[in-house]
Amino acid sequence: MAAIIRLANEFLFPVTARGGGVGYTGGAVPVDGGIVVGTDRMKTIIELNVDDLYITCQPGLTTYDVQQAAAELGLLFAPDPASYKDSYIGGNIAENAGGMRTPKYGVTKHHVLGLEVVTGAGEIIRTGGRTVKNVVGFDLTGLMCGSEGMLGIITEATLKLLPMPEATSTVRANFTSMEAACKVLTKFTPHGLLPMAMEAIDKFCIAAVEENFAFGLSRDAEAILLVAVDGSREEVEKNARLIEQIISENGGFDVIRARSKEEEDKLWDVRRAISPSLMKYGTLKINEDVVVPRSRVPELVAGVERIGKENDTFVANFGHAGDGNIHVNFVVDRDDAEAVARARKCVSETFKLSVELGGTISGEHGIGYVKAPYLGYALDDATLAVMKGIKRTFDPNGILNPGKMFV
Amino acid sequence: MAAIIRLANEFLFPVTARGGGVGYTGGAVPVDGGIVVGTDRMKTIIELNVDDLYITCQPGLTTYDVQQAAAELGLLFAPDPASYKDSYIGGNIAENAGGMRTPKYGVTKHHVLGLEVVTGAGEIIRTGGRTVKNVVGFDLTGLMCGSEGMLGIITEATLKLLPMPEATSTVRANFTSMEAACKVLTKFTPHGLLPMAMEAIDKFCIAAVEENFAFGLSRDAEAILLVAVDGSREEVEKNARLIEQIISENGGFDVIRARSKEEEDKLWDVRRAISPSLMKYGTLKINEDVVVPRSRVPELVAGVERIGKENDTFVANFGHAGDGNIHVNFVVDRDDAEAVARARKCVSETFKLSVELGGTISGEHGIGYVKAPYLGYALDDATLAVMKGIKRTFDPNGILNPGKMFV
Repeated sequence: MAAIIRLANEFLFPVTARGGGVGYTGGAVPVDGGIVVGTDRMKTIIELNVDDLYITCQPGLTTYDVQQAAAELGLLFAPDPASYKDSYIGGNIAENAGGMRTPKYGVTKHHVLGLEVVTGAGEIIRTGGRTVKNVVGFDLTGLMCGSEGMLGIITEATLKLLPMPEATSTVRANFTSMEAACKVLTKFTPHGLLPMAMEAIDKFCIAAVEENFAFGLSRDAEAILLVAVDGSREEVEKNARLIEQIISENGGFDVIRARSKEEEDKLWDVRRAISPSLMKYGTLKINEDVVVPRSRVPELVAGVERIGKENDTFVANFGHAGDGNIHVNFVVDRDDAEAVARARKCVSETFKLSVELGGTISGEHGIGYVKAPYLGYALDDATLAVMKGIKRTFDPNGILNPGKMFV
Repeated sequence: MAAIIRLANEFLFPVTARGGGVGYTGGAVPVDGGIVVGTDRMKTIIELNVDDLYITCQPGLTTYDVQQAAAELGLLFAPDPASYKDSYIGGNIAENAGGMRTPKYGVTKHHVLGLEVVTGAGEIIRTGGRTVKNVVGFDLTGLMCGSEGMLGIITEATLKLLPMPEATSTVRANFTSMEAACKVLTKFTPHGLLPMAMEAIDKFCIAAVEENFAFGLSRDAEAILLVAVDGSREEVEKNARLIEQIISENGGFDVIRARSKEEEDKLWDVRRAISPSLMKYGTLKINEDVVVPRSRVPELVAGVERIGKENDTFVANFGHAGDGNIHVNFVVDRDDAEAVARARKCVSETFKLSVELGGTISGEHGIGYVKAPYLGYALDDATLAVMKGIKRTFDPNGILNPGKMFV
């Protein structure tokens, strides 16, 4: 890898790292040409240390591979992006991927202990190590997480593992509005309870799913909330019961609690059915991942509905309500240039709204080239200037992944 | 703050930020003179948001102040360095402080959502935000954590809060060796159990504590292990019982479980008594905070004992065994230059040993000027060069905290 980057510095051609290639913002797309370095064959697990709770591996494993290898030895790799069977761990680190379990477990960067990286200058550096505690020099591990292949290419990663919780359980409920569903999220706190996942689904998603799959969802449901917990069997049982009760006391109806793994999977089927179902409203689905403090989600959802209406564009919202990270979907006909332009206007207005509500333009998809024109909505010039300085430090000739983030 | 830094850039004098001034590596000591910027009067809580689980505050609050403000509203600020009543939150972020609760909760950087920073160039930048998910630009928040006041001065921080767990419990046990005590730490994993804190104390600490305070500790105890859990009342009860059982099955004896907050405090008294007790062996206590993968702690402790013996220096080990972060204490007479030189030799050999065992030279105290001569033990030249480049990006004139980390 270092030899390729050194060559690139000599002959000044771009190099773009590519893992699973399933990112939403084009991080792995070589927009300025040059060489694409695929990590497909870098699939070695170098060490899986059960006693010390870490795995050291190459970047070309899928996140699912990592989860499975850990699970076989009774351990959990907590980050869990929806793309986990397709996205590579190198890409997940480079994008600082999120997912469903963030309320309890945080994002990918919270589970990376150390990295081997080839910088844009072709130098091999080692960041962090094998321990959670490590304050030797600046935290380059943290900086690499979410750097979108622009500072260096990850060639090896040491990831933190956790003891595998004994059980999980999910509660699903209907609400008469997204506002009511999201208000429940703050009611768990006084009970000392932090669910592993809290997902909300709006009425447009429900209608789309119901039309496609006929799950038999209630016609009175204007929103669905899914809440999952994990832990010991007794703890999960107790917490799931408590969640049922809190939801029922706060406007939830048709409350269902899974009593087996199969029942739990069935409850999540609705969530998984959303993305394909929305494609019946058009041939182009623009899926954005704005994030706001979770109490502002109702305002965000109401605002996005207004934006859709004003711009005559179909919009549906669902996603990680527990951490304020909502997937806003504008669906249009790919061949209708005017409709696409209207949808792009919706996106731009949604980004502005998210920032106004105290949030930002991307919770987990990154910037890439797709969101690059909007970076200024979220970051001021002084902060951007520091980021550009860091880019120059790692990659003085601008070899790595040009055309991303800063344009 | 920005005006001071701009002035410093004009007239080229050093500026060193100082919070509580209780760091172990001299991070707040202005070794090259210039101006010290104390944050003592920056004690405002700007926002404490219960629904969205964050606090925004100035850097001059102690970590205890932050914990108390959160606790009054039923929330937990998890990072818990032993100095929490004296160290300031700004300093804890700048040093990426650790503490006892790391096995379950991670370190300070895992709980920082966003920062306002004045860079060494005098620019005011804003990093991160109010949400856990935020992938807009490079992760400057992570980079600032542990940057030791060398990149910028933190003027405002937004910190992640958690629901306050209902209860805690502690189990204490004796062992016939540190090796036996540390071997237990890996036995909790198959039960899906991750204790909040796991602390080990060696025979020299036990003897010192017993001589000073006469707690009535067993003469057969060559090591003490303290294990704490938190969660709901039932969960804590169940897990503490399980821990008792696992410890008893793995060589622990005189196993005691606290049945009230008072009993729990009493169990921890031994741990708290160590530092003052060790001062009876000399007038200078060199307290290092090396870290290794936790399964290597027995080798580390045995190695450090050998190093002490070879260099005729009293040594005692205790600390955060659950995350491999051991406090190695060499105690000598401050006025005996030869003894001090021997102790310094012990330190240097201990650092080398830690790196050999797959660990590093500092888990939570940082580098400052005290450990700067040893940075090369842990970091190679290419990695150091990148760190120096980052320093130049933030602080082109080398205004902030000169004489630290890189010497």
